[in-house]
Amino acid sequence: MWVVDEGRLEHIAIGAGILGTGGGGNPYYGKLHARRLVRDGAVIEVVPPDEVPDDALVVSVGTMGAPTVGVERIGRGDEPLVALRALEHHLGRKATHIIPSEIGGGNSTKPMVIAAMAGLPVVDGDAMGRAFPELQMDTFSIYGVPITPAALADIYHNVTLFPYLKDALTLERYARAVTIQMGGSAGYAFPGMSGAEMKRTAIPLTLTLADEIGRTVISARSEHTDPVQRVLDVTGGRALFTGKVTDVQRRMAAGFARGSLEIEGTGDSRGMTMGIDFQNENLIARTGNEIIAVVPDLICIVDQETAEPVTTEVLRYGLRVAVIGIPAPEMLKTPEALAVVGPAAFGYPEVEYRPLPGVYGQGATT
Amino acid sequence: MWVVDEGRLEHIAIGAGILGTGGGGNPYYGKLHARRLVRDGAVIEVVPPDEVPDDALVVSVGTMGAPTVGVERIGRGDEPLVALRALEHHLGRKATHIIPSEIGGGNSTKPMVIAAMAGLPVVDGDAMGRAFPELQMDTFSIYGVPITPAALADIYHNVTLFPYLKDALTLERYARAVTIQMGGSAGYAFPGMSGAEMKRTAIPLTLTLADEIGRTVISARSEHTDPVQRVLDVTGGRALFTGKVTDVQRRMAAGFARGSLEIEGTGDSRGMTMGIDFQNENLIARTGNEIIAVVPDLICIVDQETAEPVTTEVLRYGLRVAVIGIPAPEMLKTPEALAVVGPAAFGYPEVEYRPLPGVYGQGATT
Repeated sequence: MWVVDEGRLEHIAIGAGILGTGGGGNPYYGKLHARRLVRDGAVIEVVPPDEVPDDALVVSVGTMGAPTVGVERIGRGDEPLVALRALEHHLGRKATHIIPSEIGGGNSTKPMVIAAMAGLPVVDGDAMGRAFPELQMDTFSIYGVPITPAALADIYHNVTLFPYLKDALTLERYARAVTIQMGGSAGYAFPGMSGAEMKRTAIPLTLTLADEIGRTVISARSEHTDPVQRVLDVTGGRALFTGKVTDVQRRMAAGFARGSLEIEGTGDSRGMTMGIDFQNENLIARTGNEIIAVVPDLICIVDQETAEPVTTEVLRYGLRVAVIGIPAPEMLKTPEALAVVGPAAFGYPEVEYRPLPGVYGQGATT
Repeated sequence: MWVVDEGRLEHIAIGAGILGTGGGGNPYYGKLHARRLVRDGAVIEVVPPDEVPDDALVVSVGTMGAPTVGVERIGRGDEPLVALRALEHHLGRKATHIIPSEIGGGNSTKPMVIAAMAGLPVVDGDAMGRAFPELQMDTFSIYGVPITPAALADIYHNVTLFPYLKDALTLERYARAVTIQMGGSAGYAFPGMSGAEMKRTAIPLTLTLADEIGRTVISARSEHTDPVQRVLDVTGGRALFTGKVTDVQRRMAAGFARGSLEIEGTGDSRGMTMGIDFQNENLIARTGNEIIAVVPDLICIVDQETAEPVTTEVLRYGLRVAVIGIPAPEMLKTPEALAVVGPAAFGYPEVEYRPLPGVYGQGATT
């Protein structure tokens, strides 16, 4: 067990930003909110999955919607708590633990806000090891945790509960439609699962990984060593490309930020151009016709100098960036996982998934 | 109290078709389903509002969506029952009575199906006295019955529950978005209200009115008297126009059937053309620039010879029709009601509501 103090919040926000692979929303607001609660005396405990009792009620909470909306429309912060209360009312039982469903982006820090508000511990793990744009793209549902009951709430505390839906894709469609009506962003609480189900399906220790990534970036900056190299060391990733952003195409479609960007190579990448497509998150990186990396592997864009994560919504002409490829967690590479989070699931049926070499989070101390 | 037998089902289907003002969906499927249940021994009791105890739990059930979808995609028929069970689970209490929310169209007969399945009596009344395209357009919400909790279910028994929404317009937006995902048609259960709330807000005895309209039409047909005139006598309506349908423009937009039609006059209407706009239901009838009738007054299109109702989804070139105008129930003419169901609410801010003379249902014997 460890406690999330202000320093850890800073680390996690940076680490989660990098693991967000361009999406997942910015961890910044959640960090500020959690910091306020910690300063006011809240104690946010993080427990490893294997310390959670089998009969616990673990609920995943966070915010869904397009990150580009989250930047311009700041929520109250308690939307997921309202959703959690609706889920508890339906189940007739109180949650015992909170777990992030995605460690990448804003849904890393928001569960801490809810944990602080509800007085519950946070499980050190998640269901993506990164960020993904759609609800069904998580190891909970890929490995058989029922997706309902599920709850959504908006800033007016309007609540939508799905007592039963036949599968996660149906939840994605129904919840996405409601989220759009909720203004493009909604707090969620789902799935609720037993401790045993969580231990079988969660990707463990990813909060610790995010914390370590952030810690090493911050220390590299103060020690004037190369923070990007340090990120590679901790994450098990590799440098894919270095250059200047020369074009960003971005549009809102069906509640998602979709688009593509182009990076003109500098340094070792001079003379080449990398193109990256995204749907909230970065999906595929190509130089010319060659595919350099593709989902579920993590394609992370960071500032060349500071390793500060560059998310989809802040991409703009002229940014000097490094593109990092991190091998996906093994739980995302099984056939059942690739059917949901592989290239075909994102509209690239012709692309074969060839995993980046290495092991996710290999350099982390845990 | 009266019991819905097969004959009454035939009457109500015709009466509800006429009161549907072109929309509300066809009562035909619900009639067939209810008839099957009655033949199998179900007893559907209809009780007048003033016989319902103040502490009853009265729940409105039916189907929402575009009538054009309902014609091509036949539901299971138990969708509203699944929604009702979800509502009851949330409330922790069983319903005691069913009430239609709209007497016009399919939501007249579907509540009888659910009443038969659930073994509950049906209240003789509704919240529109006709049909309207949107959820907030009902006397329950106009006169202050909380719109949530509310439940929807689809043919796969996927369920969506809205435990709390701030107002009926929000429910309209959220539930419409889910209904579209549900394939354009969903069973609903809302609002749940006390007997006292129902008695304060329902338009009473409209099932009896539908029954009487249908009875008089059927007897006129067999007696070779003019069924259209008999409808006018019973409803308090007047003949607005007679002619042949010469043009129908229809499109699906945001889950609604929207469009317009033109009727070339014959008989007393010779030399004139009537144009009617609809959004599921007929909204406004004009000859040239003159407004002949407008919502909330009922603009009903029936077959010239048989008085069979002609609904939006079966409108086609060549039909010989009579257009009937029926004055709206008084509860739809108050300032608070006109704000929700008057011309401006349907996109005609420049049109002043000038009520048709007469009294809704004046010629009915009750």
